[in-house]
Amino acid sequence: MALDDVRMRGFRRRWDAHQARQQLLERITALGAEEVSLWEAVGRILAEDVASPMDVPYFDRAAMDGYAVRGEETFGASSYSPVSFRLVGESLPGRPCPRALAPGETVRIMTGAPLPEGADTVVRAELALEQGTVVQVLEAVPPGKSVSRRGEDVQAGNLLLSRGRRLRPQDVAILAAAGLSRIPVIRQPRVAVLITGDELMPLGAHLSNFRIIDSNSVMLDALIRRDGGLPMHGDLVPDQRETLRQRLKEACEAAEVVLISGGSSVGREDYAPLLVAELGELLVHGVAMRPSSPTGLGWIAGRPVILLPGNPVSCLCAYDFFARPAICRLAGRSTAWPYRQVCLPLAAKISSELGRLDYVRVRIRNHQVEPIATSGASILSTTTQADGFVLVPPESEGYAAGQTVPVYLYDEEESHILEQ
Amino acid sequence: MALDDVRMRGFRRRWDAHQARQQLLERITALGAEEVSLWEAVGRILAEDVASPMDVPYFDRAAMDGYAVRGEETFGASSYSPVSFRLVGESLPGRPCPRALAPGETVRIMTGAPLPEGADTVVRAELALEQGTVVQVLEAVPPGKSVSRRGEDVQAGNLLLSRGRRLRPQDVAILAAAGLSRIPVIRQPRVAVLITGDELMPLGAHLSNFRIIDSNSVMLDALIRRDGGLPMHGDLVPDQRETLRQRLKEACEAAEVVLISGGSSVGREDYAPLLVAELGELLVHGVAMRPSSPTGLGWIAGRPVILLPGNPVSCLCAYDFFARPAICRLAGRSTAWPYRQVCLPLAAKISSELGRLDYVRVRIRNHQVEPIATSGASILSTTTQADGFVLVPPESEGYAAGQTVPVYLYDEEESHILEQ
Repeated sequence: MALDDVRMRGFRRRWDAHQARQQLLERITALGAEEVSLWEAVGRILAEDVASPMDVPYFDRAAMDGYAVRGEETFGASSYSPVSFRLVGESLPGRPCPRALAPGETVRIMTGAPLPEGADTVVRAELALEQGTVVQVLEAVPPGKSVSRRGEDVQAGNLLLSRGRRLRPQDVAILAAAGLSRIPVIRQPRVAVLITGDELMPLGAHLSNFRIIDSNSVMLDALIRRDGGLPMHGDLVPDQRETLRQRLKEACEAAEVVLISGGSSVGREDYAPLLVAELGELLVHGVAMRPSSPTGLGWIAGRPVILLPGNPVSCLCAYDFFARPAICRLAGRSTAWPYRQVCLPLAAKISSELGRLDYVRVRIRNHQVEPIATSGASILSTTTQADGFVLVPPESEGYAAGQTVPVYLYDEEESHILEQ
Repeated sequence: MALDDVRMRGFRRRWDAHQARQQLLERITALGAEEVSLWEAVGRILAEDVASPMDVPYFDRAAMDGYAVRGEETFGASSYSPVSFRLVGESLPGRPCPRALAPGETVRIMTGAPLPEGADTVVRAELALEQGTVVQVLEAVPPGKSVSRRGEDVQAGNLLLSRGRRLRPQDVAILAAAGLSRIPVIRQPRVAVLITGDELMPLGAHLSNFRIIDSNSVMLDALIRRDGGLPMHGDLVPDQRETLRQRLKEACEAAEVVLISGGSSVGREDYAPLLVAELGELLVHGVAMRPSSPTGLGWIAGRPVILLPGNPVSCLCAYDFFARPAICRLAGRSTAWPYRQVCLPLAAKISSELGRLDYVRVRIRNHQVEPIATSGASILSTTTQADGFVLVPPESEGYAAGQTVPVYLYDEEESHILEQ
């Protein structure tokens, strides 16, 4: 792609946003596996099908507190004519009764305790009267009643969880119960973040001389972690071609994804697209999307390289649209939007341009969607005032007031918004 | 509350689940504040209103690449009769033009660069022709065009974010842009987890002699972290009254919430309710809820103490219903369910008992809700096979097949389920 002739003149052509994303994603597959402890496994993606190495439970146990008996010996029992058993011991969880039951015998048993040999039933405490060494059973109880059978939950060899599963808290519980303590999960992609711009100073620096604080690093850090990546930060990169070139090469060796923020447009000091083309392949440069049109997508040494606009609003949108699904796919996760969706009517119209994807920040008030009017893409406070955003697809010129549109909510908890 | 007369006989009375929860929650308020770096702030709850210490941006800057001019000097310009300016320098981000513009002068300017003194407008590069030291402007451009004004995003003293806000990635970006690097957030509650049961062995142990692996610890660890708490684990606690008493006292000193798993029912070795009553106050013991009826709620030395059933399924439900909102409230978070809700028709009826809250695990297949049939509450695999759960409130006897019911989805990403 010839870049020089577009410098200071804008992009000659802008890629369709979905096509551009597709170009990037179709080359990306999930990383390999690593073993982790169950303590670290929730939220990770299972790399292989996992079968149970054992029956769960691996012995018959009481499902209620009561008395272990042979069920058939209770037949005919009622409160008018109870059946008596000899109490010969007790079985507690982890402290089984050492002897087998002979006919006419029972042991006191607690929920979770092993059923003694010879017993097949637990008579619930409410259905029995204990007096000294005699237990009177007041009701017939069929064999197997109130017993949790060996293998009732999971049988040895059965599939516990499938490859690709995003592990839930209860998943690690069942893996633990089945005797596992480490499991194979997809590795987390390391994501190198290169922040360019001579005007930038790091978080906490004292501002002077028309410089500004780099706010993309902390934002990208949280976004990358949300999406299952491991962010790798370094010093801010000055607008010097050779320095950026060196840092980019290092990043491609150290990480599985490289994000470059800033220097992604067609200005004189926008070296990032040139360097990606030089060191690898620049697949896409300039996208029909607002904000975030100066986005670039490339490939160096088998690594996706994503050029994000330096402006924080554009950076956020471009991250979410391009970098997020790339990182999620490497991490073995779904590439679906991480935001909850609600459908509500628009309080005012949204205008868009045919052929362009618009990312419109909105508020929700009185169960209506209010577009946040803004003169420019650079107003970061619009993203903090917004409850979410509406995507206007390229094939649409916008939406009329009153039309019901899907809104992606920034917040995980939608309920308070919907009550407004 | 007298406990001895209910031993081995079940609970005399069961509390309404919502009333029981209310008993606990009405005493709980958010913890105090601590300062954290913006690098650690996303997901935390802002403890105070935060105003901007400065204007953002704090200088006028170019919103486009082009030429800085006095706008009124372009009036009358067109491609047929361009207006010429003398090119006297350039302004780059972080490298401002050192001199002010005199009439008839312009400087080349890049997006984000400071506007030189004397200029009020940026002529987009596409609307100008640069030839040597002369720039011809081809269109009239009104003053203020393509300029990002000082304070345009945020003005000094204005509220940036309100107390109680759960911080998003873009929130830390705007806080950083406004020159802040540390902010006050609500402290994370420390949650002591006491796991009791002589039958239990820790994760990774080799099973023998009718013992089972403690699967609640890893599950609770993930749940507590999800809800903004800091889990504190210790060794498994044997079923010995004095040991549990000692551990419970230590836990109440070290943590803001204490969870005890196991020993919460009315069996002979269920010491937890007795000890809570002895060391503090047992508010609730026994809840009209299935599973999880042997749940207890108490208060020791100003700390909520929650008795969770040892059975993992019951433990999960009781955690979600009682411990989760307690931890969330201490952490300053919303106590709303963390699961997405969808409404779909039932494929088969659900029966429940009047007066009891039922937590029914369900699958979603073909856009219908299928209750997972199970004989007992102890089948952990039902929670891993389930896509979510339906709550049947105490005032309902259940739902008929075909009725549309709300389902809480375990998975954060619902889309793949809804496509099934």
